[in-house]
Amino acid sequence: MDIKDELRSFKDKIDPEIKLFFDKVLDESKKEKLIVTDALKQVKKITLSGGKRLRPALMHCGYLGVGGKDEKEIIKTSVSIELIHIFLLIHDDVIDNDKTRHGQETIHTQYARIGKIISKGKRDSKHFGNSMGIVVGDIIGGLGNQILFKANFPAELVVKALHHLQGIVAMVAVGEAQDVFIEHRRSATEKDVMDMYKNKTAKYTIEGPLHLGAILGGAGEDVLEKITQFSVPIGIAFQIQDDILGVFGNEKKIGKPVGSDIREGKQTILVVKAMQTASAKQKKTLNKLLGKKDLTKTEIAEFKKVIIETGALDYSKNLAQKLIKEGKSHLADLTFNAEAKNFLFGVADYMTAREI
Amino acid sequence: MDIKDELRSFKDKIDPEIKLFFDKVLDESKKEKLIVTDALKQVKKITLSGGKRLRPALMHCGYLGVGGKDEKEIIKTSVSIELIHIFLLIHDDVIDNDKTRHGQETIHTQYARIGKIISKGKRDSKHFGNSMGIVVGDIIGGLGNQILFKANFPAELVVKALHHLQGIVAMVAVGEAQDVFIEHRRSATEKDVMDMYKNKTAKYTIEGPLHLGAILGGAGEDVLEKITQFSVPIGIAFQIQDDILGVFGNEKKIGKPVGSDIREGKQTILVVKAMQTASAKQKKTLNKLLGKKDLTKTEIAEFKKVIIETGALDYSKNLAQKLIKEGKSHLADLTFNAEAKNFLFGVADYMTAREI
Repeated sequence: MDIKDELRSFKDKIDPEIKLFFDKVLDESKKEKLIVTDALKQVKKITLSGGKRLRPALMHCGYLGVGGKDEKEIIKTSVSIELIHIFLLIHDDVIDNDKTRHGQETIHTQYARIGKIISKGKRDSKHFGNSMGIVVGDIIGGLGNQILFKANFPAELVVKALHHLQGIVAMVAVGEAQDVFIEHRRSATEKDVMDMYKNKTAKYTIEGPLHLGAILGGAGEDVLEKITQFSVPIGIAFQIQDDILGVFGNEKKIGKPVGSDIREGKQTILVVKAMQTASAKQKKTLNKLLGKKDLTKTEIAEFKKVIIETGALDYSKNLAQKLIKEGKSHLADLTFNAEAKNFLFGVADYMTAREI
Repeated sequence: MDIKDELRSFKDKIDPEIKLFFDKVLDESKKEKLIVTDALKQVKKITLSGGKRLRPALMHCGYLGVGGKDEKEIIKTSVSIELIHIFLLIHDDVIDNDKTRHGQETIHTQYARIGKIISKGKRDSKHFGNSMGIVVGDIIGGLGNQILFKANFPAELVVKALHHLQGIVAMVAVGEAQDVFIEHRRSATEKDVMDMYKNKTAKYTIEGPLHLGAILGGAGEDVLEKITQFSVPIGIAFQIQDDILGVFGNEKKIGKPVGSDIREGKQTILVVKAMQTASAKQKKTLNKLLGKKDLTKTEIAEFKKVIIETGALDYSKNLAQKLIKEGKSHLADLTFNAEAKNFLFGVADYMTAREI
C-alpha cells in the first residue's frame, strides 16, 4: 500500500477513537456546566478537521514493529500523542498569532472574539484570548497524559513510556523557545536552526512517537537508539519541507495561510540560507518583508523570488533529500518486522513528497 | 510543634532537593548550550526565593499518614508537585500580567525586557515575553512530571498517582479558565466563584498533593474519598484567605504587589459579596477601581473601605472559618496516623491564620 493510503487507513481507525474521547470529555464538561465546554468543542472541531495523524501512526508502528500484539489498545492509547500535539499547537498558535488551524478558528482567536462581546469592547480581549489559549492548551495536555496512564499495558512499561513522553514535551518546548528567541532576534546561524529543528520537530514528531510505541511493545535501549538514528534526520527533513510548504505551498492544502512564517519573521532554513548568499539588494528585500504583518500577494512573490534566486530553495530541498537518505540508511540495522520497516521507508520518502 | 515550624522544617528538607534538581537540569542545559539556560536560572531563583512548600508537605503527609515508610524517596518525589505548581504560576503570571513573584522578576517580564534589547525595541517584546512564559512553563511542567515517573515506588502506584496528577492539572486549568472568563466578563455569582475556587485551588493545593502521597503509600479509594471531604472546604478557605491578603495583606510578606487583584479586575468572593449589598455609590466606586491599571494607594484604601463597609470582609472571614470547621469535622473518620492527622489539623487552622 502507498504510504498516503496507509496513513489514511490508519486515520480511519483512530479518528473514531479521538471523537469518542472528546465526546466523553464534553459530556463530563456539560454535566459539570464547565465554562470550557465551548472551548473543548472547538478543540474537537480543530482536531477532527485536519491533520495526518502521523504521530499516532508512528506510535502504532513502533509498537507493532517490535512485536506488540494488542493493536486495539495501542490505537486507543495513541490518541494521547495526538492530544499532546494539539496542546502544543494551541500554544504555538498563540505564540505565532495564527488565526486558523485546519481551516478552523484557533482557540485564542475564538476567545478574543468572544471576549470583545462579553466585555463590550472595554477590555483587552486579545490578552483574554491568549490567556484562554494558554489554559485550554494546558487542559488538553493534562488530558493527553491521562490517556496514557489509563492504558492497559504493564505498569512498568507505561511508567517508562511516560517518563519518555515528558522528556519529549520538555524538549519540544525547548525547541519552541529557540524558535521564539531567534525569531525575535531576527538572526540565526544554520546550526541554530538545525538545533531548533532537532528539538522542536525531529524528537517530537518522529522519534518520540516511535519510542513510545516501541517502549509499550517492550523494546530495549538498543532498539530505541536505532530509532533515534533514523528519526532525527527524517524529522529535520520533515521540518524543512514544512518551511518550504509554508512559503511555496498551496493554502487550501496546508490549512493555514501561506506566508504566515514570513509575516511572523521566522528564521527558517530558507531565510538563513538566503541571507548567507544574498546581494545587498536581496538582503534589503528580505529584511523589509520579514515580519511585515500586512504582507500582500505581490510581496510574497517577491520573497519567493529571492529565496529561489539565492539558491536557498534548492539548498534546502537537497539538504532534506540528503537527510532522508541518511535516515533510511539506519533502517537496515533496525530489528523491526518487515511491515513496520516498510512503513518507515514510506514515511521517510513522504517527508519531502508530501504537499501538506 | 507549631504548624509554621513544621512547614519550615519540611522546607529545610525539601529545598536542598529542589536546588539539586535545578542544578542538574542547568548543567544539562549549559552542556547543550540551550537558549533556555537563563530562563531556567530565573525559574530556580523564583522557586527558591519564596513559597511555603505546602503542596509537597501535604504529599509527604499523605504518604506517611497511610503508613508509607520511605521518607527519603517521598521527599525527592514531592519536588514534582512543587514544579507543577511553578509551571502553573508561570502561566498564571502571564495571564495576570504580574511583574514579580516571590520578589523576583517573572519569566515573561524578564523576556519582555530581554526582547526589547535583542530586537532593539523594534518588535513586540511584550508578546515575545509572554511567548517565552508559555514555553518555559511547559518545560517546567514536563520536568515536574518526569520526577514522578522516575520515583522509586511500585510502578502500579506511580501510574495511579500520575493518572491522578493529570486530572488535577486538567482541573486547575479549568478553574483558571473560569477565573479568566469571569474576570473578563466582570460579573459572577457567589456560586461561580466557589466553583472556580474548588477547581482552581482546593483540588490542586490540598486534595491533589494529599491524594498523590496517599496513593504512593498504597491507600485505597475509601481513604481518598475521606481526604476529599477534608480538602475541598479547607482549600476554598485557603483561596478566600488569599483573596483577603491580596487586598488587605502586607506587600513584603505576600511577595507580590498588594492590589494586583483589583488592578486585574478579579471577581473574588470579596468583590462578588460587596456588589450584592453595595449602595449605588459604593457600586460606582467598585466599578471605577476594578481593572484600573494605575491604581493609587488612596484608591486601594477607598476600595478596602467599601469591602469593609458592605460587610464583604466579615462575610468572607466567617465563611472561611465555617469551611475550616467543616473540613476538620471530616478528620475524625480519616484513618491517618496521629502525627499526620495533627499536621492536617494544623494546616486547617493555618489557612486563615497565615499572613502569607
